[in-house]
Amino acid sequence: MDEKTQELVERMLSGDQGALARLITQVENRDASAPEIIRRIHPRTGRAYVVGVTGPPGAGKSSLVDRLTALLRQGGASVGVIAVDPSSQFTGGAVLGDRIRMQQHTLDAGVFIRSMATRGKVGGLARATADTIKLLDAFGKDWVLVETVGVGQTELDIARQADTTVVVLTPESGDAVQMMKAGLLEVADLFVVNKADRPGADPLITELKFMVHLHLTGLDAPRDVEWEIPVLSAEAIHNRGVEELLVAIQDHRRLLESTRALESRRQARRRQDVQELLVQSLHDTISQALRSDPRLAAILDQVSRGEKDSYSAVAELFSHLDLPNPRA
Amino acid sequence: MDEKTQELVERMLSGDQGALARLITQVENRDASAPEIIRRIHPRTGRAYVVGVTGPPGAGKSSLVDRLTALLRQGGASVGVIAVDPSSQFTGGAVLGDRIRMQQHTLDAGVFIRSMATRGKVGGLARATADTIKLLDAFGKDWVLVETVGVGQTELDIARQADTTVVVLTPESGDAVQMMKAGLLEVADLFVVNKADRPGADPLITELKFMVHLHLTGLDAPRDVEWEIPVLSAEAIHNRGVEELLVAIQDHRRLLESTRALESRRQARRRQDVQELLVQSLHDTISQALRSDPRLAAILDQVSRGEKDSYSAVAELFSHLDLPNPRA
Repeated sequence: MDEKTQELVERMLSGDQGALARLITQVENRDASAPEIIRRIHPRTGRAYVVGVTGPPGAGKSSLVDRLTALLRQGGASVGVIAVDPSSQFTGGAVLGDRIRMQQHTLDAGVFIRSMATRGKVGGLARATADTIKLLDAFGKDWVLVETVGVGQTELDIARQADTTVVVLTPESGDAVQMMKAGLLEVADLFVVNKADRPGADPLITELKFMVHLHLTGLDAPRDVEWEIPVLSAEAIHNRGVEELLVAIQDHRRLLESTRALESRRQARRRQDVQELLVQSLHDTISQALRSDPRLAAILDQVSRGEKDSYSAVAELFSHLDLPNPRA
Repeated sequence: MDEKTQELVERMLSGDQGALARLITQVENRDASAPEIIRRIHPRTGRAYVVGVTGPPGAGKSSLVDRLTALLRQGGASVGVIAVDPSSQFTGGAVLGDRIRMQQHTLDAGVFIRSMATRGKVGGLARATADTIKLLDAFGKDWVLVETVGVGQTELDIARQADTTVVVLTPESGDAVQMMKAGLLEVADLFVVNKADRPGADPLITELKFMVHLHLTGLDAPRDVEWEIPVLSAEAIHNRGVEELLVAIQDHRRLLESTRALESRRQARRRQDVQELLVQSLHDTISQALRSDPRLAAILDQVSRGEKDSYSAVAELFSHLDLPNPRA
């Protein structure tokens, strides 16, 4: 690691927010220094409690995160916020508006807010988020709130990095809920029906409770703790239901801690993380080899022209790279 | 390849539908014979024209595919249909109903219909679909229609395997459209607003035309051919708008063929395909190594207990596996 990065890490660990911001940029850009940064801060990680807040666009996640942040600050805890929007190409305006609303916290040194949008490959976003959580954790934040627009696989992967995952829906989510049900049920530890003063809120709450109930009666895989997923209601912009949400999050946290489920969840997550990094590193290595070795590039060209099938090509590439043959 | 599979391939290539069905099952299950099956049929592929039909649940994709199939059959072409539903765990009923509706074709030897649902990992579904397209192609089908519930990354990956992609929406899709806009605009060659007799159809058509227009005026990456994406309307269950859809598909096909864009798209797809297979094979190889080598498993355990960070672990795993070190 170059001296400058080393100095940044030291300044960050002693509480310099500017150094923190610059290190986040380096891991987000997958700078060559990223592995060493994470290696250096690793001993200081594992203390922050991570809450994921996910749901469709327009569900009011940002307002809820904003109110939760204020409440946690009132209790004296320090808070880091990561707002991830993989589709921000199309909703840049909304994200900007949300961030402006969050500015009430910008003069508060106990709050650090960071927005992230897709940079290149989506897989990279989950990696950048994981590393940023570690940086905020090492920096000493008591809580890290990760807000994601929950739609596809990427967002679910990001949600899985949380200790407690809150899924936010609104009466308007209708079709969206339908589409995301499977994935959301899988990651939700808590449901919040936001904008609960609007028509359709009660039927949605009833439907969610019914889904939760079915889920618990054995249609799906058993969960790791005895926890009946609560279905709360809120009106974040009027600051209603936010205290109840924090109580539920704290209840869930206490349950995970008392049953050691927190540690086993974190272990599973670390295992998942290293395997993903492994595949990604292999992918990088192969891409590098394909670029630098004309024999390998020639095999790809044959596939591209339809002269060779993919399976034969992969077997040849493995043999050139001196790797054990994949399942023949 | 065992003798039985070899015999199946020969029977399939000479027109045996039962052999075709069994080979599809083998590639779908990622049977050890899959690579050899694809290798054997490869010289017979590349002739079928592949149309993807994607959109949210309830858009009427199955009815549309059904009507298109009937129309193509009237013209004397043979048709293969692949219906992919990654969320079928929750919508099994609907798929079943759709398939029953398709049974008008089951006595027609010119039509072959296959449903696919998630089996294990979602990545496997895109692979199974790609291999099944190749089998239907080698079997001699003139057209392969691939119907997917278009939501997340997987479905978009599947849609990318088509030569022409039709995106089906309904006035009710509202929120869903909002969520999928980015991805759908990316893959759509044609839009169909189905159930066009329902309220809200006209505003949706206007909105889509506007989006298409914006797309073409340079807000996004340039497309490979000069093609203004048509926005059609249909009422599939009343057989309205289906002929117009087929005309538009044929127009698009002719354009791709006359500009050689078809070949360049297929080349890009084959390149993508081999790279995905490469990553998947690497993943399998690593998983195998982790299971069989206790030293590697020990490194994973250290990460799992939080004693080692992922980047350090990956560097060690690479060194044990004798791979070139990933970007340090």
